[in-house]
Amino acid sequence: MEAFGEEEFGSELPTEAVPEPGWLSDQELAATRGRVPILYVEAVPVRVDHVGHVTEVGLLLRGSATTGAISRSLVSGRVLHGERIRDALLRHLEKDLGPTAFPVLPTSTVPLAITEYFPWPGARYTDARQHAVALGYVVPVSGECQPRQDALEISWLTPAEAVSDAIIAEMDGGRGSLLRQLLHHVGALDD
Amino acid sequence: MEAFGEEEFGSELPTEAVPEPGWLSDQELAATRGRVPILYVEAVPVRVDHVGHVTEVGLLLRGSATTGAISRSLVSGRVLHGERIRDALLRHLEKDLGPTAFPVLPTSTVPLAITEYFPWPGARYTDARQHAVALGYVVPVSGECQPRQDALEISWLTPAEAVSDAIIAEMDGGRGSLLRQLLHHVGALDD
Amino acid sequence: MEAFGEEEFGSELPTEAVPEPGWLSDQELAATRGRVPILYVEAVPVRVDHVGHVTEVGLLLRGSATTGAISRSLVSGRVLHGERIRDALLRHLEKDLGPTAFPVLPTSTVPLAITEYFPWPGARYTDARQHAVALGYVVPVSGECQPRQDALEISWLTPAEAVSDAIIAEMDGGRGSLLRQLLHHVGALDD
Amino acid sequence: MEAFGEEEFGSELPTEAVPEPGWLSDQELAATRGRVPILYVEAVPVRVDHVGHVTEVGLLLRGSATTGAISRSLVSGRVLHGERIRDALLRHLEKDLGPTAFPVLPTSTVPLAITEYFPWPGARYTDARQHAVALGYVVPVSGECQPRQDALEISWLTPAEAVSDAIIAEMDGGRGSLLRQLLHHVGALDD
Repeated sequence: MEAFGEEEFGSELPTEAVPEPGWLSDQELAATRGRVPILYVEAVPVRVDHVGHVTEVGLLLRGSATTGAISRSLVSGRVLHGERIRDALLRHLEKDLGPTAFPVLPTSTVPLAITEYFPWPGARYTDARQHAVALGYVVPVSGECQPRQDALEISWLTPAEAVSDAIIAEMDGGRGSLLRQLLHHVGALDD
Repeated sequence: MEAFGEEEFGSELPTEAVPEPGWLSDQELAATRGRVPILYVEAVPVRVDHVGHVTEVGLLLRGSATTGAISRSLVSGRVLHGERIRDALLRHLEKDLGPTAFPVLPTSTVPLAITEYFPWPGARYTDARQHAVALGYVVPVSGECQPRQDALEISWLTPAEAVSDAIIAEMDGGRGSLLRQLLHHVGALDD
Repeated sequence: MEAFGEEEFGSELPTEAVPEPGWLSDQELAATRGRVPILYVEAVPVRVDHVGHVTEVGLLLRGSATTGAISRSLVSGRVLHGERIRDALLRHLEKDLGPTAFPVLPTSTVPLAITEYFPWPGARYTDARQHAVALGYVVPVSGECQPRQDALEISWLTPAEAVSDAIIAEMDGGRGSLLRQLLHHVGALDD
Repeated sequence: MEAFGEEEFGSELPTEAVPEPGWLSDQELAATRGRVPILYVEAVPVRVDHVGHVTEVGLLLRGSATTGAISRSLVSGRVLHGERIRDALLRHLEKDLGPTAFPVLPTSTVPLAITEYFPWPGARYTDARQHAVALGYVVPVSGECQPRQDALEISWLTPAEAVSDAIIAEMDGGRGSLLRQLLHHVGALDD
């Protein structure tokens, strides 16, 4: 089970003969991953009340095509060559939550958290494929979320439920810790 | 001309015989202002595009009842005793922008800027009435703004126009510097 | 047991006949506390390695003169009228950690956390005396800490120990949650 | 004149037969730069007073070996594969400021600014070589700075001087705007 949501990377390629700039072949991506840290954005979709307080947290439930194992994840994905962070963030939110989620992107691209994933054991945050550095955000959504692709389901939990030990245990690569950090930052956790 | 928007403080008092908790008489407020720093919230209302980038900045044009002088200001006001920061922020946004502005409050109350106003000459930020400490935010609004009370008008400027020397010169107490800081923080300024 | 470290407020007054500006008599302070939110600074003293990573967390062990009860606390105290936030932060660090702690104050006064304490039951963060709003920081110290006054002892814990349930239970008013938030923000917690 | 300080990249390679992991040949780096955004750290070295307020700003004066042109720059450089952000930051500070600068790294790796450099005209921030995303910090130094390599000199300016039009005009790729943003964030600018 891969930690980030781009394992079926090839299948996302446009069908045109010439791929868009930024998209890499599997081979190119593999080579690049061994050379430099790969930049990601990650977002926790939330519902907020009228004063901006987080009331619900959306976690994606993904299933592995090969092992059948289930894991919870955040919205996440790569920033492509030539792509602005804001555009990458919106693209991945739409990819994972569907076209009617109506995410409200932050006014600042300064992230609430920086997460460093390493491909070796013992690291706090791990990603078997690569060294990745992720910019972390909390993004309110006001519409209806309809997960697509390999995201089977989105479940909405209270902030306290979302950081319970049972849920955290279903998150890969240390993302449970990231989730706690982000929800703490926005004052959504009581203890 | 006062820097903050509460100079007609008495006139905002509820008409009931017993004021709500948090509201102070003019005399009580004057005494308190000499004793402790007074906590404020300040917000720059903005319009954003679909990826959260600031496209327009709303500045309030206030007129002084006594001198007729005009000044530009941000949305700002006191946090009352017993009032949450989020509630104070929404209350002042509604007071200054009207009920149909539909502000989108930030998910975190951690401000983008902290501003310290002192009542003596030579301070970077000044407020003749008091020592005030203000939590600064940038708040997207999606609806129509209809300024009330002493706010004569709201004008929408591009970020570059909003921080031009001419506009900055119309802002009291150093708020032009705060405006620059906040717009820099959200990446709205080009130079 | 009071949550903040100023319960013996009167005893801190200068011995001169005329108190310094900013200091209030007990009576004045009591009256003021019922009128407006009182501004505080709070800091977690830490030791860091050569790249700035937090290795140890300093918690103050305070004893109550009346009940003998023990509680853990952060460095905290009021911002006085006319006092800059930076000066208040340094003053309270020196008061609680002694003159040889050599704290390294942050370059920015924008806090890592904003905490709202209310004097009524059911609030997430509570302070029996007042509505307080605290600006929260993490401050490395490089020297030797010698707690003074009512602070009996400073104990240095690993970040994981500092947020263990046993330690958190010894912190008043919800500060354990604040401590978790601040340590998460600086990447000091592993889970 | 290149915007970042690694144009003589090949000459920095260790002399051992087998390069350390993370270092790329010129050819590998060129290929990688066309495929993904490259992650950088950037830092403004500053001197601070005893309460953390910025008093002086250090700008590097670099000369181009080919054109003789002079430009001002910040400390900056790539995050290598497998390298932690903190280690990259310290490595580049030591490379540009020498071994006796004694930089005080921030406790949090969450940057004060995110800057997106694109290799095409019209972008706000430009880098002719690549799409780069830089994490921006302000780093106090307490020792003596002795620039090495292609950095000819470090000059210490007041914050106001550092953001004057004359100095800003000597900074490449939009870094003058970044400098303003960072100094605003730490409250170092008066207007």
